[in-house]
Amino acid sequence: MTTRALRPELGCCYYPEHWPRARWAEDARAMAAAGLSWVRIGEFAWARLEPRPGELHFDWLDEAIATLGAAGLRVVLGTPTATPPRWMIDRHPDMLALDAAGRPRRFGSRRHYCFSHEGYRAEAVRITRLLAERYGANPHVAAWQTDNEYGCHDTTLSYSPAASRAFRRWCEARYGTIDALNEAWGNVFWSMDYASFDEIELPNLTVTEPNPAHSLAFRRFSSDQVVRFNRAQVEAIREHSAAPILHNYMGRITDFDHFALGADLDIATWDSYPLGFLEDRVEADAAHRMRFARQGDPDFQAFHHDLYRAVGRGRMWVMEQQPGPVNWAPFNPAPLPGMVRLWTWEAIAHGAEVVSYFRWRQLPFAQEQMHAGLLRPDGAEAPGLAEAREVARELAETGAIETARAPVALIFDYDADWAWTIQPHGAGNSYFGLVFTVYRALRALGLSIDILPASARDFSAYRLIAAPGLMHVPDDLGHALARADALVLAGPRTGAKTAEGAIPLPLPPALPGLDVTVARVDSPRPSPGVALVGGGTMGRYIEELETGPEARVLERLANGAPALVAQGNWRYLAGWPDAAAARRLVRGICAEAGLETLELPDGLRCRLAGGRRFWFNYDASPVAFAGRTLPPAGVLIEDAS
Amino acid sequence: MTTRALRPELGCCYYPEHWPRARWAEDARAMAAAGLSWVRIGEFAWARLEPRPGELHFDWLDEAIATLGAAGLRVVLGTPTATPPRWMIDRHPDMLALDAAGRPRRFGSRRHYCFSHEGYRAEAVRITRLLAERYGANPHVAAWQTDNEYGCHDTTLSYSPAASRAFRRWCEARYGTIDALNEAWGNVFWSMDYASFDEIELPNLTVTEPNPAHSLAFRRFSSDQVVRFNRAQVEAIREHSAAPILHNYMGRITDFDHFALGADLDIATWDSYPLGFLEDRVEADAAHRMRFARQGDPDFQAFHHDLYRAVGRGRMWVMEQQPGPVNWAPFNPAPLPGMVRLWTWEAIAHGAEVVSYFRWRQLPFAQEQMHAGLLRPDGAEAPGLAEAREVARELAETGAIETARAPVALIFDYDADWAWTIQPHGAGNSYFGLVFTVYRALRALGLSIDILPASARDFSAYRLIAAPGLMHVPDDLGHALARADALVLAGPRTGAKTAEGAIPLPLPPALPGLDVTVARVDSPRPSPGVALVGGGTMGRYIEELETGPEARVLERLANGAPALVAQGNWRYLAGWPDAAAARRLVRGICAEAGLETLELPDGLRCRLAGGRRFWFNYDASPVAFAGRTLPPAGVLIEDAS
Amino acid sequence: MTTRALRPELGCCYYPEHWPRARWAEDARAMAAAGLSWVRIGEFAWARLEPRPGELHFDWLDEAIATLGAAGLRVVLGTPTATPPRWMIDRHPDMLALDAAGRPRRFGSRRHYCFSHEGYRAEAVRITRLLAERYGANPHVAAWQTDNEYGCHDTTLSYSPAASRAFRRWCEARYGTIDALNEAWGNVFWSMDYASFDEIELPNLTVTEPNPAHSLAFRRFSSDQVVRFNRAQVEAIREHSAAPILHNYMGRITDFDHFALGADLDIATWDSYPLGFLEDRVEADAAHRMRFARQGDPDFQAFHHDLYRAVGRGRMWVMEQQPGPVNWAPFNPAPLPGMVRLWTWEAIAHGAEVVSYFRWRQLPFAQEQMHAGLLRPDGAEAPGLAEAREVARELAETGAIETARAPVALIFDYDADWAWTIQPHGAGNSYFGLVFTVYRALRALGLSIDILPASARDFSAYRLIAAPGLMHVPDDLGHALARADALVLAGPRTGAKTAEGAIPLPLPPALPGLDVTVARVDSPRPSPGVALVGGGTMGRYIEELETGPEARVLERLANGAPALVAQGNWRYLAGWPDAAAARRLVRGICAEAGLETLELPDGLRCRLAGGRRFWFNYDASPVAFAGRTLPPAGVLIEDAS
Ligand SMILES: [Zn+2]
Ligand SMILES: [Zn+2]
Ligand SMILES: [Zn+2]
Repeated sequence: MTTRALRPELGCCYYPEHWPRARWAEDARAMAAAGLSWVRIGEFAWARLEPRPGELHFDWLDEAIATLGAAGLRVVLGTPTATPPRWMIDRHPDMLALDAAGRPRRFGSRRHYCFSHEGYRAEAVRITRLLAERYGANPHVAAWQTDNEYGCHDTTLSYSPAASRAFRRWCEARYGTIDALNEAWGNVFWSMDYASFDEIELPNLTVTEPNPAHSLAFRRFSSDQVVRFNRAQVEAIREHSAAPILHNYMGRITDFDHFALGADLDIATWDSYPLGFLEDRVEADAAHRMRFARQGDPDFQAFHHDLYRAVGRGRMWVMEQQPGPVNWAPFNPAPLPGMVRLWTWEAIAHGAEVVSYFRWRQLPFAQEQMHAGLLRPDGAEAPGLAEAREVARELAETGAIETARAPVALIFDYDADWAWTIQPHGAGNSYFGLVFTVYRALRALGLSIDILPASARDFSAYRLIAAPGLMHVPDDLGHALARADALVLAGPRTGAKTAEGAIPLPLPPALPGLDVTVARVDSPRPSPGVALVGGGTMGRYIEELETGPEARVLERLANGAPALVAQGNWRYLAGWPDAAAARRLVRGICAEAGLETLELPDGLRCRLAGGRRFWFNYDASPVAFAGRTLPPAGVLIEDAS
Repeated sequence: MTTRALRPELGCCYYPEHWPRARWAEDARAMAAAGLSWVRIGEFAWARLEPRPGELHFDWLDEAIATLGAAGLRVVLGTPTATPPRWMIDRHPDMLALDAAGRPRRFGSRRHYCFSHEGYRAEAVRITRLLAERYGANPHVAAWQTDNEYGCHDTTLSYSPAASRAFRRWCEARYGTIDALNEAWGNVFWSMDYASFDEIELPNLTVTEPNPAHSLAFRRFSSDQVVRFNRAQVEAIREHSAAPILHNYMGRITDFDHFALGADLDIATWDSYPLGFLEDRVEADAAHRMRFARQGDPDFQAFHHDLYRAVGRGRMWVMEQQPGPVNWAPFNPAPLPGMVRLWTWEAIAHGAEVVSYFRWRQLPFAQEQMHAGLLRPDGAEAPGLAEAREVARELAETGAIETARAPVALIFDYDADWAWTIQPHGAGNSYFGLVFTVYRALRALGLSIDILPASARDFSAYRLIAAPGLMHVPDDLGHALARADALVLAGPRTGAKTAEGAIPLPLPPALPGLDVTVARVDSPRPSPGVALVGGGTMGRYIEELETGPEARVLERLANGAPALVAQGNWRYLAGWPDAAAARRLVRGICAEAGLETLELPDGLRCRLAGGRRFWFNYDASPVAFAGRTLPPAGVLIEDAS
Repeated sequence: MTTRALRPELGCCYYPEHWPRARWAEDARAMAAAGLSWVRIGEFAWARLEPRPGELHFDWLDEAIATLGAAGLRVVLGTPTATPPRWMIDRHPDMLALDAAGRPRRFGSRRHYCFSHEGYRAEAVRITRLLAERYGANPHVAAWQTDNEYGCHDTTLSYSPAASRAFRRWCEARYGTIDALNEAWGNVFWSMDYASFDEIELPNLTVTEPNPAHSLAFRRFSSDQVVRFNRAQVEAIREHSAAPILHNYMGRITDFDHFALGADLDIATWDSYPLGFLEDRVEADAAHRMRFARQGDPDFQAFHHDLYRAVGRGRMWVMEQQPGPVNWAPFNPAPLPGMVRLWTWEAIAHGAEVVSYFRWRQLPFAQEQMHAGLLRPDGAEAPGLAEAREVARELAETGAIETARAPVALIFDYDADWAWTIQPHGAGNSYFGLVFTVYRALRALGLSIDILPASARDFSAYRLIAAPGLMHVPDDLGHALARADALVLAGPRTGAKTAEGAIPLPLPPALPGLDVTVARVDSPRPSPGVALVGGGTMGRYIEELETGPEARVLERLANGAPALVAQGNWRYLAGWPDAAAARRLVRGICAEAGLETLELPDGLRCRLAGGRRFWFNYDASPVAFAGRTLPPAGVLIEDAS
C-alpha cells in the first residue's frame, strides 16, 4: 500500500431493465449532469438476459451500455448470479440452501442458492462467461462486479446435502485421515469420534452445542466455498477482460473471509447504509440510537472504509451509498440534511476512489419500493441528489486527494470472528464488538487507523498495533509483533486458541516476550462490570492474569487484579473495557507510543489524509472544537501539512 | 342501514353433549329464568353427530333442541366444521394446513383444516346439508351459525400443497396471462419473472422478504378461500332453511375480509372478551393494561360493535360475551364487579340485537376448563349470572332501543390491513393501530361512530369521514369522498398504493381536489417522535408533503414540515399522531365540521342511540363529568332527545 | 429415614480417556493427596470402549481403574449410554429423538437418543451388561452411575415415531378401552374423540393448545420411559455387582419423576452448579442476580440437597460440584474466593455423603474447554483445589456428622410440576416457582426442611407440612395430612385437579376437614398484584374462596377476600404471595406450630444437623447476626445441642 493521489469520483446504481428504453438516455444525461461518472448495472438481470434456459437476450443490455457510455459514463457490469431465474430451480431442485433448522430457502427474493452446489456454480460461470465474452472488450465497461453482497441475509452458511458432501471432502483435504481429524477436534470428548469422513454431518440440529472445533471447521469450509464460487467467476471474466473486477461487500457481514475473497479481486467495494446499519447492526443503547438516528453511527462507516481499503489492498469504493431513507431496517428515518454529503466525504477521506449511490431512481414496485433513490419514483429529484451534486462540485475544486498511511494499525481477522461467534462465553460478546470498542476509542482520540489482516507481517509504518481478541495468533505473527517498533495492544483473548480452536498449552496468550498467563476466565454481566482503579469498568470477558517478573502492571481492577500489563512493546489488556475505560487506556498507550491525540466530542470525528485533515460533525447540533465550529452534518477540510 | 327499534335479548352458548341428558331440562329452565332467550349449540359436536364416517347420531341433538325449545329458548345451531373428527384426517391426510415454516398443523385441538382443501370442503358441505335437511324447518332453530371463529389461531393462511395449487389457479383467474402477472407484481425486480402460473410458489420460506405484491395476492387469495368455504355452507343451509345465517367473528382477526364474508350472511356476530383482548391483542403500555386490567380497554369493544354492525349491514350480535375470567390470555384476571353488565349494555348501545354469554356452565375438563361460565363447574351460580339477570330486568324496563346513524364515519378496509402487515415500514406499525388511534380520539370526544367498508360510496349521512391509512383508494371512492358534504380526514398512507401494492404515479395521495404530494417517507421510532408545534408528536410513519397553492397547512411539525393540510373538504394528516396529538387534531376538525364534542376522562365513554345517551365508566373508581357521577363499572342511560 | 452418622468424603470426575496413560498415576496420587477419596469415570467413553460395533477395548479402562484404585481411590463407574457412538446412528437411524417441531435431534453432542427406542435400549443394556460382567466384582469399583443427567437439554420429551408407538401402548395399558380414555380426557370437547388407540398422536404441532389431559398423559408416559430405560440398566448391573447404583440428576430438571427413578437406585446424586444455575434457571430479578452472581442463590442448592436426600431415601451425594467458572451459562463469572468451600460444606450440612468436583482437570478442547476443573488445562492447580483441600482437612477434624430430621416437611411432586407446566394460567407461573417461594421463606426464617414425595403418608416427625400447589391430592394423602399432628400449609392450587387433570367436583380444594371452596380463579399480573391487609401482595394466581362457618380467615386481601384461612390443622393460602408476604405468613404459621424462627438477613442461611448448626454467608460482604460475624463466603459450625 503506497501513497497515491486519488481523483475521487461519484456514481450510481441503475437498472435499465426497470425503465422504458426511452428513458435511458435522459437518465444518463442527468447522471452526467449531476457530476456522476460511474454507473453500475446488470447485477439482478438474469431473467431478462436469459428468460428461458439458453435463450439469450443481450440486445437491451448492448443498448443500455451504449446509451450510458454515450453520455460519458463508465459502466460497472455486474454478474447476475445473486438472482438465478425461476427456471434454474427446476433444472437444479437441490441448489437451494437449507437453513440451520433444515428448511429450504426458496425462490422468491434473492440469494437463493447454496455456494456448494456444483451445478449452480457451473451455471453461474456459464452466464458470467457469456457476459465476459460479449462485453469484455466493450470500451464502456470499465469494471466488473461479481454477484451481489455475498453472505447477505445469512446466506454463507448452508446446511444442504450439497454442503454436507462438500464439507466431508473439505475435511478430508484438510486433515488427511479421520484419526487426524478426531485428534484435531478432540472427538474423544463425549464419544464423538468418527470412523470415516462420510460419517461427518454438518453441525446443526445437535441436541446441545456441537464441538466448537466442528463448528469452526464448518465456518472455514463455508467461507472457502464463497471464495471458490467467486473465483470461478473471476477466472471466467479475466479470460475476456482486462477491466478491474470487484465485489460489493455488505457492512458487518463477517461469515466469510473478505480478505481471502478480496485476494482474487482488484478493488474492494462495500455498501454503506449508515441509518439502516445503526438500527439493525450497530451495538448501541437507545440513547445513542436516538442521538444519531438521522446521521448514523460516527464510527461505523469509517471502520468499514478502513477495513475495505485493506481488503482491496489499498483500492476501495463505496458501491452503494444510502441517499435517503431505506426500507429494510426496523425504523427508517430520513437523513438529516447534509448527511449524504457528509457520508460521501467521509468515504473519500478514507480513500474511496468512487462513491456510488444506491440507487439512481426509486422503483415504485417490488421489495425495495420504499427505498429512496437520487430521484423519486416519479422522476423528480430527491433531496440526496442535490447533496451528491454539491460533492461533485466540491471534488472538482478540491483536486487530488492523497492516500495516507495511518500511524495506528488494527488487525481484523474473520477467523477470530468465527471463533468468538462459536464461543462467545458471555451473552452478547462478539469479536466485532470488542474490536469496534477499540476502534471507537482510537477514533475518538482523533487518530487515523489502518486495518490489517492477520496475515500482515510488515508493521514498519506503525507506532501502535492493536490486535484485541485475535483468537489465534500464528507463531510468526506473534514474533513479527514482538519485533515491531510499535507498541502492540493485545488482549483480551489474543492468542486464546490454537489453530483448531482449542486452548493452547502453555496457556494463553503465549506471546513471545510477554510473560503473562491467563490463569482463569471470568465472564460477568457487562453492566456494572468490575471497576478499574483508574476509572471505567471491565465486563463481559475478563482474564485473570499471572504475570512474570518483567511484566509491569499498568492498571488494576479494583480487586487488585491486573487490568493492563506491559512488557517490552506488548500492552496486554486483561478484559473488555467499557467506553470510558477503553478511551482512557488507549489514550495512555498512545502517549507512550508518541502519538498525539485529540479529545473529540462524541459526534465529532476527523481523519488525516495526504496533508489534509477532514472533520465531520455527526451531531444534529453545531459542535465547537479547538477554535473550529461545525454546523450539524458539517464537513470541514483543513490543510494539515 | 335505516333506523330500527330493537328489543335486545340475551342468550348463552351451551354444549348439551358435555352434560348428562338429565341435566338439560334443568339448564334450559334456569336459562329462561335468568332472562335468556337464545342458546347457541352444536358448533363443536361433529364427533358426536358422526362418530364414524357416515354413522349419524342426531337423536341426542333432536332431544336437546326439543328440550331447549320447550323452555322457550330459541336455538342458534352451529355447523361443526371447525372441529372435524379424527377419522377425517385418515380420509384426507392432506387436509391439514401447513404453517409458514412448512409444518403440518395437526389434529388435537380445533381449526385443523386448510380452507383450500377441496375434499374437506365437500365434507363440510355434506355435514352442513345433513343438519340443514334435518333442522331447517325445526321451529326452535331460529338461526344458523357457520363454523366458529374463522381465522382464529392464525388459520386463514395455509402453506399447504392444496393452497399452492389453488393459489396458482386464483392467479390465473385474476391476471389472465403470466406476463400480466409479472408486470403487475414487478417481477423484473430481482429476476423474479415466472414463465407459467405453475411456477408460482407460496410466499413463505424465501431467503429474504418476498415481493410485497406476491404477498398481497396471497393474502387476497387466502381471504377469498375463507369466503368460498363459508359460502358453500350458506348455500347448503339456504336450500332447507329460512332462518338467518350468521358467523361469530373473533375480535381483531383481520386476515380475511369480514365484509366479503358477511355479504353472504344475514347477521354479523362477534366474540367479545374484553379482558383477554386487553392482554393479548390491544396495543397498550403497561400502565394502561394495569389500569383497565379488570375492565377491558374502554374503546376496543365499541370499535368492534361498530365494525360488525357494518359487516352485518346493520344487524349485529355478540355471540360470545366474556362472563368472568378466561383461560387463554397471558394473564386472566377476574372482572371488576359490574363489568359483565357494562359490557352487555355497551353492546346494546351499539346496536346489538342479542348478547350471548360464553358459556352457560364452566366445563371442568379439556382445554377451556379454566374458562368461566355463567355457572361454575359445580352448577352453582358464578358472579356473571347475577349481572346478566340484572341486564335482563333492565332491558324489560327500558323497552325498545332505536338504532342510530352516527355523524362520523370511519372506513375500515381489510385489504389495507394486509398491505400494512406486508409493509409496515416501521416496527410495530399496523393499520389497525392507526385506525384505532383515530377511533379512540373520536370516542374520547364523545362522538358516536359508524364504521364503513371501502366499498361505501354514499356518505350523505355524515359530517366527518375518516379514512386514515387506507392504502389503496379506488378512483370512484376518491371522487365520492371529494364530493361528500362531510370533511374527510385522510392520511397518513391514504392512497399510498395502487391496487397491486405499488407506489402510484403521480405520487400519493393523488386524491381528487387535494394538491398534496408525499415527497418522501420518514419512519422514526415512535417515541419520542417528532414534536408538533401545537403539542403532541408524530412518529412511526411521517410523510414529507409538498403542498400546492390552494392547500392550507393547518398544523406543522416543529421542524416546519406540514402536519395537517386542508383543501376543500380534505384534511390530510401527514403522520401517525400520538394520543395527545390525535385528540387535539381530531377535535379541531370536528369543530370545523360542526360536530359538538365532549372532553371525556380516559375511563368514561358514551354513545348516543335513538334519543338516549348511554354512559359507561370503565374506571375502577367513580368518575364525575358535567354533573353526572358514575360508580366504578357504572352504566347511565340518559334521555338525549 | 433414620438418623445416621456420616463421614462425608470428597471426590472428583475424571476422564482417563482424555489424558495420556502416563499421566494417570500422577493424577491419581494428586487426587488422593488433596484429600479426595472417590473418582467417577467412564460415563462418556463408549466410543473408546467400542470404537466399532462389537469391537471392545476394555484394556485401557482396566488399567485406569487399577491405577486409580492403587492410589486408594474408590471408583464410580458410569455407563456410557448418554453418548452412543456415531456408528450407532447407522445401526438405528430412527433412534434419535424428534423435537416438538418435528426435527431430529442429531449426533454431534450428547443425549442423542429417544428413551422409547427399543433398539437403542437394547444396545444400552448390552454395553451396561458388558461393563457389569467385567467390573462387577472389581474391588475398586465401589459404585455405579447409570447414564448421565437424564433429561438434560430437554431430552425427556421426544416426539419420534418410536415415542408415538410406545405412547399408544402406554395409553392402552392405562385406560384399557378407548372409550375410557375419551371419558378420562374429556375428548367430547372439540370433537377430539378417538375410535382406537392407534389414532392417538403426540400432543405437538396442534393448531392451538392440545387437551391438557392429553399433555399430562404424554408427560407421565415420557417420565415412565426414562424410568424404564434406567431400570433396564440397573437390572443388568445388579446381576453382576453388589455395589450401590446411583444416577446424577441435574438441578431443576423436572420433566421426569426423580422419585420414581430413584426407587430403583441406592443413592441419589445431583450436579450442583450454583453460578450457572443462578444465571440460567433460578427465577430472580436483576438485582438478586447481580448480588449473588459470584456466590449463587442462597437457597437453590439447599433445596436440591433436601430434594435429593428424599429421592435417595436418605442417601445423597453431589456428584458434580462446580469448582470454578463454567462454560454454559449466559454469563460465567468466577466464584468469590471461599465459595467452593462453602458450597461443599452446605452439601454436607444437608446430608451429602460425598461431594465430588466436576472435573479434576480442565480439558483444553471440545465443548467444555472453558469449564474450570480443580486443575487448569496445563495441570497447574486452579483456585478450587485449595478450597477442596481445605474442606478435606476440616472434615478430618470435624468427625462424624449426624443426619437430622427437620421439623418442617415440604412436599414436592413431579406430577404437579407437569400439571402446572401444562396449565400455568398466568405467564411465568410454575410449580417450582411457587414451591421455591415457600422454601425460601422457611429457610429465611432459619428452619431446616425435609422434602417429601407426594407418596409420603407418615408425617409424625413434623410440626409443619407445606404442600403448596400440589395439583392433585390423592384421597389418602388428604386424610393423612388432615390427621397429622402438624399444621399443614396448603394452597394455592392444592387439590385443584383430579388425577386426570380436570377440575374435581365438588370444587377444590376438597380437603378433608377444610370447609373451603375455590369459587373462582384470578390470575392478575404478578406485579403490582393485590395487596394484603397485613403487608405484601399476592399475584400470579389468586383463588376466590368461599369459607364455611368453621373456617377462620387469618388474613385478607385489601379487597376483603380471604388470603389465608385456618381450620383444624389446615392453613390454606389463597394465592401466590410475594417474598414479603410469604415470609410474614409463614412466620405466623410457624409460630402457631411452635417452631422457633430466626430473622435471617438475605445472604445468611443456616441448617441444623445432628447437634450442630451450620451457618453460611452467601453475601460478598461480612454479615453480623445475633453476635456472630461471618466473612464473605464464610462458614461457621456451631454446637447446637
Ligand atoms: Zn444492496
Ligand atoms: Zn369462542
Ligand atoms: Zn455434567
